[in-house]
Amino acid sequence: MGLSGRSILGNELGKTGGKIFHAINPATGQELEPNYYSADAKEVDSAARMAATAFPEYSAVSGKTKGALLRKIAERIEGLGDDLVTRAVQETALPPARIKNETARTCFQLRLFAEVVEEGSWVDARIDRGDPGRKPAPKLDVRSLWRALGPVAVFCASNFPIAFSVAGGDTASALAAGNPVVVRAHAAHPGTAEMVGQVIQRAVKESGLPEGIFSLLFDAGTEGGLALVNHTAIKAVGFTGSRHGGRALMDAAAARPEPIPVFAEMSSTNPVFILPGAMKERGVEIAKGVHASVTLGAGQFCTKPGVVVVGNDAPAREFATSVREMMKASGEFTLLTSRIHEAYRTGVEARSREDKVRQAPRAGEDATASGFRVNTALFETDAHAFIENEDLQSEIFGPSTLIVRHDSRDELLAIARGLEGHLTATLHGTENDLREFADLVAILETKVGRLIFNGYPTGVEVCHAMVHGGPYPATSDGRSTSVGTQAIYRFARPVCYQDFPDASLPDELKNENPLGIWRLVDGQMTRDKLTATAGVKSA
Amino acid sequence: MGLSGRSILGNELGKTGGKIFHAINPATGQELEPNYYSADAKEVDSAARMAATAFPEYSAVSGKTKGALLRKIAERIEGLGDDLVTRAVQETALPPARIKNETARTCFQLRLFAEVVEEGSWVDARIDRGDPGRKPAPKLDVRSLWRALGPVAVFCASNFPIAFSVAGGDTASALAAGNPVVVRAHAAHPGTAEMVGQVIQRAVKESGLPEGIFSLLFDAGTEGGLALVNHTAIKAVGFTGSRHGGRALMDAAAARPEPIPVFAEMSSTNPVFILPGAMKERGVEIAKGVHASVTLGAGQFCTKPGVVVVGNDAPAREFATSVREMMKASGEFTLLTSRIHEAYRTGVEARSREDKVRQAPRAGEDATASGFRVNTALFETDAHAFIENEDLQSEIFGPSTLIVRHDSRDELLAIARGLEGHLTATLHGTENDLREFADLVAILETKVGRLIFNGYPTGVEVCHAMVHGGPYPATSDGRSTSVGTQAIYRFARPVCYQDFPDASLPDELKNENPLGIWRLVDGQMTRDKLTATAGVKSA
Repeated sequence: MGLSGRSILGNELGKTGGKIFHAINPATGQELEPNYYSADAKEVDSAARMAATAFPEYSAVSGKTKGALLRKIAERIEGLGDDLVTRAVQETALPPARIKNETARTCFQLRLFAEVVEEGSWVDARIDRGDPGRKPAPKLDVRSLWRALGPVAVFCASNFPIAFSVAGGDTASALAAGNPVVVRAHAAHPGTAEMVGQVIQRAVKESGLPEGIFSLLFDAGTEGGLALVNHTAIKAVGFTGSRHGGRALMDAAAARPEPIPVFAEMSSTNPVFILPGAMKERGVEIAKGVHASVTLGAGQFCTKPGVVVVGNDAPAREFATSVREMMKASGEFTLLTSRIHEAYRTGVEARSREDKVRQAPRAGEDATASGFRVNTALFETDAHAFIENEDLQSEIFGPSTLIVRHDSRDELLAIARGLEGHLTATLHGTENDLREFADLVAILETKVGRLIFNGYPTGVEVCHAMVHGGPYPATSDGRSTSVGTQAIYRFARPVCYQDFPDASLPDELKNENPLGIWRLVDGQMTRDKLTATAGVKSA
Repeated sequence: MGLSGRSILGNELGKTGGKIFHAINPATGQELEPNYYSADAKEVDSAARMAATAFPEYSAVSGKTKGALLRKIAERIEGLGDDLVTRAVQETALPPARIKNETARTCFQLRLFAEVVEEGSWVDARIDRGDPGRKPAPKLDVRSLWRALGPVAVFCASNFPIAFSVAGGDTASALAAGNPVVVRAHAAHPGTAEMVGQVIQRAVKESGLPEGIFSLLFDAGTEGGLALVNHTAIKAVGFTGSRHGGRALMDAAAARPEPIPVFAEMSSTNPVFILPGAMKERGVEIAKGVHASVTLGAGQFCTKPGVVVVGNDAPAREFATSVREMMKASGEFTLLTSRIHEAYRTGVEARSREDKVRQAPRAGEDATASGFRVNTALFETDAHAFIENEDLQSEIFGPSTLIVRHDSRDELLAIARGLEGHLTATLHGTENDLREFADLVAILETKVGRLIFNGYPTGVEVCHAMVHGGPYPATSDGRSTSVGTQAIYRFARPVCYQDFPDASLPDELKNENPLGIWRLVDGQMTRDKLTATAGVKSA
């Protein structure tokens, strides 16, 4: 499969005009072929309009049809095999095994959403049957379900070239719910994006679905993305990236004549709390786990533990020593992009100058000459300094973390209370610790989307119960998740039908329950068929 | 029960300083006793802080406790009896029967939310059991549920002194989900607000719940409300009112350092489409229904049909004649406030000057001398003018509507395609009409939250399936409803627990399923208990 460097506009390709950019190999700093051409304003407009045109037809297709599309995309991505791995490794410097895992995860995710829409109960069908005899007024027959929202703009993440990119979670959930998507590729891995984009383009065509349900735009800068968010045809935005970038999209979307929802997953420091019982029992083992989690993927996960809260006793000091040694002994890491590389160097340098923050000795300077190589950076501070200086809970994207020591339970709780919104919080403890620190858990429940016990925040299971979200600034809207099947509700809205004849209702709401889905009927969950209802007026 | 004119701050009353205002009797234009005192910045801050303090305790109470509170509030509102009716009639000029119905509806709504939280399945509990043997990595045990979001600011509506005010839908759903509320009374009916507020204050106290879960603020202007929306303790906003007011709150909330969701129900014109079969069969009967719906409550419902789309054949002309006669023969109507009165007069005058819009003869001039009295206003235009002039689909709040004639099916569909977001769309037709105009239905599904067949949009059933929402500008967020039990999700967010020991999980997620709720376990809906799961690691 050849790379063209051109955007994908439905069944067509974009022009070769537009601002040119290249992928860069982070390991060498060298440009990769081919040229990539930024979509111009006309192409952005065309993609958004095609999506709007495709919306009515696509939103009305069956769950089976949408499921088949998602399965076809997954199959075709798997079919890319080593070509995809090779290109993604070139563009990200991530190890091949990681790219393979990420691809498997992406395809699993597409198929899980296929299952959800094929089964069909996700629409939360609700039926309240009418009662013409009710006093003082007859009760109306009201039936609701969730429907697709409209064309969705999806922004690819820098740090997941597959799983949070062209065919990632936002695309999968948007397509599953019945929405066309216009994807804006990340400029760091356009080749990977194009390969996956070509696969989707072909899958859409072969499925006989309207071409406008998928377009992929390249953009050297931020203009194209902003134009997309400001386009009247776009009804929602999915984004994974920096707080700065996410907030810019939130502000743009909120300022539109018709504001639209933005689901931005931005920054998170994922505090880890090591409670006394666990520290005593297995502090050194936890140190190994923390080190592995901090350095996994060169620390470039939104779930990287960036703050580790420990006590001030002997086991805690031993823990810190152990983390210090492992961090120093880690080899160099190659970061994804020049921007991330620069932000890491700046962030580490700034933190090293913070008052009352001690930096552990490092293995060496962060390289600049060629490639985006850095060393780990470990910082240590106390509860007072952490609570007083909110910069210390901001994210340093890369292999760095901060150990915060507290002297008392009160300090521990004050640290928790002072936290802003994060994606996760982790507790290491014995079951007894967990009971004793129930008040800590209660605080953390209000701060994050996922609470982890005796594990590590990196590694986000794709499943029905996953909540990969959390209060601002972790995300733009803590009432949502970007991983797991609940993500489908981002791109859907409820609609109800009052006194409609059975034959004109969507299948999900018909008396017969032809799809056999779960429904809330007069307040009771059931999969039963309904007998003729009293409430439907005859026309 | 005496009226104090003072805000309610938890268990206390506010000061008697602050800018003074009075309720005004719309029938006479005269001020009603007592003085009402605007909450000052300190009082707003105090109410918000108390709510934040109360949040952890209240969000953790059982569904049974929350249900008991909601039931106690309902019982106590009923206990107000004629005192409440008398005051509300004085403040709104609405008929006593309407106030009684509205009170009954409000209490029904409180009890329906009580049922929902007592039963408990609303939390959408999801359990994905772990599998330590999964390759390449063990599967984690992940369990999620929806929890309370945090303190909610509720803005009372002018047009529903009870059902969308102090103990209205937003308060009921916020309290049901486990959130403290700070209510900002509407300046048009502060006495009604205070009576209901006193009842809630007492119910909270008697229930032994933290006082901060309810406060009620009076405000002569908009400063107090804006201060509330900007307060860091407030995590969401519920509002029912004008587009101008709603958008101002949306903008303020989006510009906060920590943006928060605003659920504003703003303006809607609720188009009614009368299809040819129905027009032929029962045009005059529909004319009666349209007239009744347009003038119900003096046309001051957000669901008032403000646009009626008809054909151009003899039955349609007869329909228009009939509406014209009934509108002219309607008596005078008293509007709720001087602002609504002024907006109606201005709106009617502006529309009468629009190009290609014909105004039917009116019964008389809108009175100004005393009281807020007006006459009905009927406008007529054609499809071209309607499509070209978007002002014609803006809401005129009061007893006015616009008949739009089309000459063809294409014009009819073009009218539908040109609609902005509305709360409802209504179709009158035979079952055959409905099948023939399936494409019209498909367009309208993307424009509104509720589709009505052979009925009228006024009259919103309080039930599980109701969707009282719709795309912007009908509301700030079309993915939500302000009526019905789905409203509980406005003020909640999902949280998940990874590998937690069973004993430390919320009851909803324990293996034993002690609450007997419906749960999605490994993708299957069930109320069963779970046997020991493989995935929970021992600590």
